[in-house]
Amino acid sequence: MPRPRYAYLGPAGTFTEVALRQVVSPDDAEYLPQTDVVSAIEAVRAGVADHAVVAIESTIEGGVTATLDALAVGDPLVLQREVLVPVGFTLVGRPGVALADVRRVAAHPHAWVQCRRWLGAHVPGAVHVVATSNTAPAALLADAGAGADGDALGFDAALVPPAAPAHYGLADRVLAEGVADNPEAVTRFVVVGRPGPVPPPTGADKTTLVVHLPSNEAGALLTMLEQFAARGVNLSRIESRPIGDSLGRYSFSMDAEGHITEERMGEAFMGLHRVCPHVRYLGSYPRADRRAADVHIGTADADFLAARDWLRSVRGGASV
Amino acid sequence: MPRPRYAYLGPAGTFTEVALRQVVSPDDAEYLPQTDVVSAIEAVRAGVADHAVVAIESTIEGGVTATLDALAVGDPLVLQREVLVPVGFTLVGRPGVALADVRRVAAHPHAWVQCRRWLGAHVPGAVHVVATSNTAPAALLADAGAGADGDALGFDAALVPPAAPAHYGLADRVLAEGVADNPEAVTRFVVVGRPGPVPPPTGADKTTLVVHLPSNEAGALLTMLEQFAARGVNLSRIESRPIGDSLGRYSFSMDAEGHITEERMGEAFMGLHRVCPHVRYLGSYPRADRRAADVHIGTADADFLAARDWLRSVRGGASV
Amino acid sequence: MPRPRYAYLGPAGTFTEVALRQVVSPDDAEYLPQTDVVSAIEAVRAGVADHAVVAIESTIEGGVTATLDALAVGDPLVLQREVLVPVGFTLVGRPGVALADVRRVAAHPHAWVQCRRWLGAHVPGAVHVVATSNTAPAALLADAGAGADGDALGFDAALVPPAAPAHYGLADRVLAEGVADNPEAVTRFVVVGRPGPVPPPTGADKTTLVVHLPSNEAGALLTMLEQFAARGVNLSRIESRPIGDSLGRYSFSMDAEGHITEERMGEAFMGLHRVCPHVRYLGSYPRADRRAADVHIGTADADFLAARDWLRSVRGGASV
Amino acid sequence: MPRPRYAYLGPAGTFTEVALRQVVSPDDAEYLPQTDVVSAIEAVRAGVADHAVVAIESTIEGGVTATLDALAVGDPLVLQREVLVPVGFTLVGRPGVALADVRRVAAHPHAWVQCRRWLGAHVPGAVHVVATSNTAPAALLADAGAGADGDALGFDAALVPPAAPAHYGLADRVLAEGVADNPEAVTRFVVVGRPGPVPPPTGADKTTLVVHLPSNEAGALLTMLEQFAARGVNLSRIESRPIGDSLGRYSFSMDAEGHITEERMGEAFMGLHRVCPHVRYLGSYPRADRRAADVHIGTADADFLAARDWLRSVRGGASV
Repeated sequence: MPRPRYAYLGPAGTFTEVALRQVVSPDDAEYLPQTDVVSAIEAVRAGVADHAVVAIESTIEGGVTATLDALAVGDPLVLQREVLVPVGFTLVGRPGVALADVRRVAAHPHAWVQCRRWLGAHVPGAVHVVATSNTAPAALLADAGAGADGDALGFDAALVPPAAPAHYGLADRVLAEGVADNPEAVTRFVVVGRPGPVPPPTGADKTTLVVHLPSNEAGALLTMLEQFAARGVNLSRIESRPIGDSLGRYSFSMDAEGHITEERMGEAFMGLHRVCPHVRYLGSYPRADRRAADVHIGTADADFLAARDWLRSVRGGASV
Repeated sequence: MPRPRYAYLGPAGTFTEVALRQVVSPDDAEYLPQTDVVSAIEAVRAGVADHAVVAIESTIEGGVTATLDALAVGDPLVLQREVLVPVGFTLVGRPGVALADVRRVAAHPHAWVQCRRWLGAHVPGAVHVVATSNTAPAALLADAGAGADGDALGFDAALVPPAAPAHYGLADRVLAEGVADNPEAVTRFVVVGRPGPVPPPTGADKTTLVVHLPSNEAGALLTMLEQFAARGVNLSRIESRPIGDSLGRYSFSMDAEGHITEERMGEAFMGLHRVCPHVRYLGSYPRADRRAADVHIGTADADFLAARDWLRSVRGGASV
Repeated sequence: MPRPRYAYLGPAGTFTEVALRQVVSPDDAEYLPQTDVVSAIEAVRAGVADHAVVAIESTIEGGVTATLDALAVGDPLVLQREVLVPVGFTLVGRPGVALADVRRVAAHPHAWVQCRRWLGAHVPGAVHVVATSNTAPAALLADAGAGADGDALGFDAALVPPAAPAHYGLADRVLAEGVADNPEAVTRFVVVGRPGPVPPPTGADKTTLVVHLPSNEAGALLTMLEQFAARGVNLSRIESRPIGDSLGRYSFSMDAEGHITEERMGEAFMGLHRVCPHVRYLGSYPRADRRAADVHIGTADADFLAARDWLRSVRGGASV
Repeated sequence: MPRPRYAYLGPAGTFTEVALRQVVSPDDAEYLPQTDVVSAIEAVRAGVADHAVVAIESTIEGGVTATLDALAVGDPLVLQREVLVPVGFTLVGRPGVALADVRRVAAHPHAWVQCRRWLGAHVPGAVHVVATSNTAPAALLADAGAGADGDALGFDAALVPPAAPAHYGLADRVLAEGVADNPEAVTRFVVVGRPGPVPPPTGADKTTLVVHLPSNEAGALLTMLEQFAARGVNLSRIESRPIGDSLGRYSFSMDAEGHITEERMGEAFMGLHRVCPHVRYLGSYPRADRRAADVHIGTADADFLAARDWLRSVRGGASV
């Protein structure tokens, strides 16, 4: 039997690879590094990969718009799993450079933003040298080898993902680990696949969806949100995205607490289908934190089933 | 086959009898006059009558609380039909009395209230002699006969229902017809019966129900009303009634536009069943005015069925 | 200085008189008994009385529609105080009649309804003889004197208010006291007066008002209720009343928790004034139960004042 | 008097410069090109510039997160004006290259996305050569001069802003103008300045703001949105942004129709201040499209003033 193929944002050493390793070992799957998240997602649509692992949101940056947009249109895909990866960089230096010597730090702009306070405290006055990706400066350091020259390289140290030093043979150049301003910061990755049988509910699930609002209607967002509220369904993520045909038209990408096979979620979805011009289901899957959804009074499956039985008896002419 | 038996607020000549005659001819049914609406309703529960015809609301007085309360508790009954009767009284006089001679007018207090302005204009200065029912003064006039003495009777003329003069042999004593301050005023009557098969929808139906609100919850009324709003169901009547165990606890008696077998009504009823401690269905029946319900976008039966089919395909793993 | 004049539903011995005695002693005020609540209220409008004491709602019967309607239209009046009176009747008998001998019980229909279970248990099989008021049978017993004949009277015992036996010299004929099916049942009375300076808030107040809903608007009731909800104002009473011009048009009589001078109440009233065709303020007054209103987060007076200061600074161009 | 200084995303020839020219002529102002929007905004905070012109949203990409985030925190700034610039690129070629010869197109990724269908139709099979900015390939073409070599450059043609060819002396190399897949696509720019007196309302204004939702409250978004709905204020833009301390915590950046000095907007802002932990006002300014706001029944300034006068009279004890 062939090993499953996973497309992801490569190269080796990225945060996405850390997420992918939580999903499946490289011994059990084929890792297919891609240059960007859209390529990873399209690889699944094209049948080149069975799954893609892509970042969908982060504490600092919010929703990953490339991922959200790539999932919202095109052939349907579903989310099958979520993985949380703590944000924490490793600072690696040129040969012979100590933390106190660092004057120029190479970092992807996102990395720089997330470590600014730490750098201010530990390498005060260091300037930012822009890197084009998180792993690029690691590759440069590796290429430069033992005699790496600071002027040629343009930097003294670099912020790289924690998996990068091992990949690039820089394990002995680590100046600091777990570098991050907010120790709670995480990036959330999802495993994407082609639609198939819906996995059974675990009692602690999320359901992801995209809806368009009707165009010329004041209060349309309220009407949409009330479909969830009226059935006691909580939302744990809501992101607005432009529909793209004119300013002021939005779609919303959301995570709802619960599983599509649960009654309250099903009725909310039916309500959305009735009042919104477009609804796309993007999968129900277990929550990474295993926390069961809050079920409000009257919104458990048993409540819906009892209500349906009661309605059936009323319609049948029974005394109630 | 025995003729159906109808209990109603008698005696002959009442407004209720006018309503009953709209429902069924005395040739085809047994008329069972009762002393009050509760007795009429209980006659159905006891099996003494097949149906009751009772007033449920009027333009002037609002809900008939005795009717509402009698339907809300006790063995279940359902409304089967509604009948609207214009409010308009006939003024009958003692023998030989002309309109200009009238000084004292016998009238039930409700009748007096509804004709006060007319009387002020046509018999200015006339005083109110309280009658115990709308037909009582007609009976007194009939008993007194041709020599009726004003002092013995205590009044010169009486406001009686339009059907009363014929019943009481007073057709030649009519001083004025259609007496009413508000020419639009109507009383709404309902035909009550024991539960049985739900009649098919006609496209222009009402559904009557009673719900209790959960006791200690702020915004409980909003939550209840949103069950209708979320499914696009309009209410044409809403009456609060005390539950009776303590001040501040209410039940609501309502008429909703539509039929219990319609999807939006069914889902609203299920929602009420989930969030309210008590819901009683009191019947779906054709509207007297034959006006079709307003169906909001996305709330027609076809919309609900399409939503259900879509949900089924989503749950089945289909691409959407 | 003249003593204040209080109109009330008389005669002496009624429940209303019990309420009036809680308000002011007959030594300090002139008691003006009236034949009905409308007359009591009109006596204030006419300047014949300074105040009226009238029942406004009861646990069993709900809102007293005559009171609600009389306050809702006509010259403005305000509620100045509320008084709660427990519902509990006294059973008085003919001379020489013991509880075990009672076969016929005279009672106003409201009284009968509230004592039916008690009577079923203590005088099983007794029949109801309809009285025209709560005190009427007491007067009949008093008139009949020591030789009262059951056949002439038509009853053996009567349900009367607890204050009636003393008034009518029947203290030695009491067969039972505190007769009531629901020991929690109370009737709520209000003191009505002409508008004047608004009394200061006590921290535990109610505000009574009447609003009309806009005629042809679905969701009008929701819109009206949201004016309260958006400012965190709770309602402790809501009664629908027909406006009277056609079926389906309602006004609502409500008690809101709080005082008109409080910020959240003021903003809710302004909101109602903007969205409803008619709003009538009927007074702010201390609650009989002295219970302070629940104040939701962000709705205390200090929150409104802070918000207003902040808005002023924003409009003034200040940095915020 | 010194000329006002405008910071903007340079260099000369960018879309931002097109927007800036709509605001003020280079003859009347000092243009200060910056490398990114954050630098432009910070130049105002630092006092180096008087204003910044930055993109805030586009039809295709949605909100410009760097702009939104830079405005949401740090020293307060306000939006003073908005400018809409149609999205439409100019395709410029190497010397001697005709449209039919184009095989490699240099373009910033955003530009590529917005022209993909046009390119597929007009230069089928052309590959994307990633440019680091919209103007970078224009500079490369200009530097290469008349003998520009395709292999050295790495591309045959480039998508550049319409103002770029003139700036870079490439006016004779234009292969196509107005290149865009969606002819309706626009980018919205705003003029940012330091807080000062609020400009007077024009009758067709927008107000921009940022709010944080209370953290642990289901329905918090509904509560926030109802502050606008209860006062009849429409929203023309709503963007969610992570607050950054943990997943699931959001701020919302919004444009509301109307002016901060209007009553309904003022009351909505006060409501937000009471129920949300943080609200930042980002300015009221004229709409680029000059379209007057829809004013719902009961929400005009006159309605608010009438309501306030009425409340004052009620609180003063007046008859109403």
